[in-house]
Amino acid sequence: KPGEMDLSYRSTISIYKSILEQFNPALENLVYLGNNYLRAFHALSKAAEVYFKAIEKIGERALQSSTSHVLGEILMQMSDTQRLLSSDLQVVAQTFHVDLLQHMEKNSKMDVQFISVSKQYELEYRRKANNLEKCTAELWRMERARDKNVREMKENVMRLRSEMQAFLSNSQREAELEEKRRYRFLAEKHQMLYNTLLQFYSRARGMIQTKAPQWKEQLEASRNPSNSHVQGLLASSHGQGYPSGRLTPTHLETVRSTWAAFTVVVAKAALGLGGLTCGPQNPGPTACRGMGFPTCGWEPWWQLNSSHAGGLFWGGC
Amino acid sequence: KPGEMDLSYRSTISIYKSILEQFNPALENLVYLGNNYLRAFHALSKAAEVYFKAIEKIGERALQSSTSHVLGEILMQMSDTQRLLSSDLQVVAQTFHVDLLQHMEKNSKMDVQFISVSKQYELEYRRKANNLEKCTAELWRMERARDKNVREMKENVMRLRSEMQAFLSNSQREAELEEKRRYRFLAEKHQMLYNTLLQFYSRARGMIQTKAPQWKEQLEASRNPSNSHVQGLLASSHGQGYPSGRLTPTHLETVRSTWAAFTVVVAKAALGLGGLTCGPQNPGPTACRGMGFPTCGWEPWWQLNSSHAGGLFWGGC
Repeated sequence: KPGEMDLSYRSTISIYKSILEQFNPALENLVYLGNNYLRAFHALSKAAEVYFKAIEKIGERALQSSTSHVLGEILMQMSDTQRLLSSDLQVVAQTFHVDLLQHMEKNSKMDVQFISVSKQYELEYRRKANNLEKCTAELWRMERARDKNVREMKENVMRLRSEMQAFLSNSQREAELEEKRRYRFLAEKHQMLYNTLLQFYSRARGMIQTKAPQWKEQLEASRNPSNSHVQGLLASSHGQGYPSGRLTPTHLETVRSTWAAFTVVVAKAALGLGGLTCGPQNPGPTACRGMGFPTCGWEPWWQLNSSHAGGLFWGGC
Repeated sequence: KPGEMDLSYRSTISIYKSILEQFNPALENLVYLGNNYLRAFHALSKAAEVYFKAIEKIGERALQSSTSHVLGEILMQMSDTQRLLSSDLQVVAQTFHVDLLQHMEKNSKMDVQFISVSKQYELEYRRKANNLEKCTAELWRMERARDKNVREMKENVMRLRSEMQAFLSNSQREAELEEKRRYRFLAEKHQMLYNTLLQFYSRARGMIQTKAPQWKEQLEASRNPSNSHVQGLLASSHGQGYPSGRLTPTHLETVRSTWAAFTVVVAKAALGLGGLTCGPQNPGPTACRGMGFPTCGWEPWWQLNSSHAGGLFWGGC
């Protein structure tokens, strides 16, 4: 079966060629791209760190305010959580760097030696092929000369041929195996990367799942002024004899009404104290408001002014 | 309570100052840092895309090999999974961009107008304070002149004073509220970001959890040649009368034994066919090996040669 032998030889050679000329350069390129990837990752980590450091500083300022203290705590926790996530993600990057890129780089460098395997195979093949050819020619010569050793030589040629077949199929199998090892190496390394990512995603998920409901609750609580520090202060102020009704519009309401583009019910709230030289309390038009304290549902000042009527700007009360 | 009034006034003014001079510039800075963050994120996405595109190409090549076909499929799936994760992560980036950064930027720009609120408060405070002072002086004058309107003026001053107190405490409360709104805005926006991240982590985790066991199984199966295509081919070859014993060492083994630094049991496998001119089959020293096919547990060639004896280079059989 010389055609089959030839096919096996060509297939083996083409596998070695593919390992040396395609797989190995592709692996080198992958190491290069992986290092770019890693650089981009570190740049992102740095950017995230700086961003959440800024959040932390804003949080620190909020901590100093008695009314926004809780929000400061939440912002600080959000920054802390990011720091934990980031250091967890560093583990993934470390895996990628040490277990993938460095290993891939080392292997691609060592695999340059693999060319000798390919050359050795070619030499071995040629030697065997020559030997077989030589013996076949010798057999042919012996048969024509009716040599008494012809039977022995026939056996010899038969053996050489089956050895050649075994050599070719074993070599092909090993070449395929070498190729397979390399692809598997790549697949297994990336399976490891995905496992590390999976661990990261699971931890990250758990971390946020622990924090998020707490933040949500605290944020909702901070929307309700009845729970807040301010309300407590105001209540105690009222207890000390402050007027419980709202006697004067605050300056924010003055601003609101001055800027309001739509018609509002307006009342001039002049003091009307005849005979006194002291000026009127409210020189401008003032929107009528209920006398009770609106404890919640206040709209921020800009809502009357901004184009986002109905939407929230800073949101909430 | 002039001291208390003064305290309230100063506190209100300092909150406005803090919003305008600290919070707002900090928010602007955060938008700037966030845009850097986003740029770094997109650079990372791009790097990841290029990296996994290269993996995909290697996978495509493996697909063309009959023996490494499954590994090619795994590599392609790994690349696909990364693409899905990446497009999922784009949703997080989009949230960050549209719902956080753009909103933060808009608010920080609109909030520049907030200075008028602060100025309005100062004007209003001065007007009220002047009025109160004027009336108090008038009352004092009236009392000295035993004016008949003194009782009316006393009531007027009392009313102005309590109005002033209400104005101050309401204004302080509103200033605190404005401050709180801003901190809460920031906290709520980042809570939203964390929720989006949580969704991403959950999906990513689910995605890898679905794929990983499958990959692991396929990779393990690919380690066992009895399941592989090659083994099937070899078996059928044997069925067609190929020698089932290993008659000749493959070239890889020749390389191995030639390079081996340690002593190996060596046998000269000369053909020893007296009277024949055909050369010996094995010119060099060859390691003795069992005649049976080693179906698994083959060590790669470099293991004898590399400094990593015992460790795996490409690994596996």
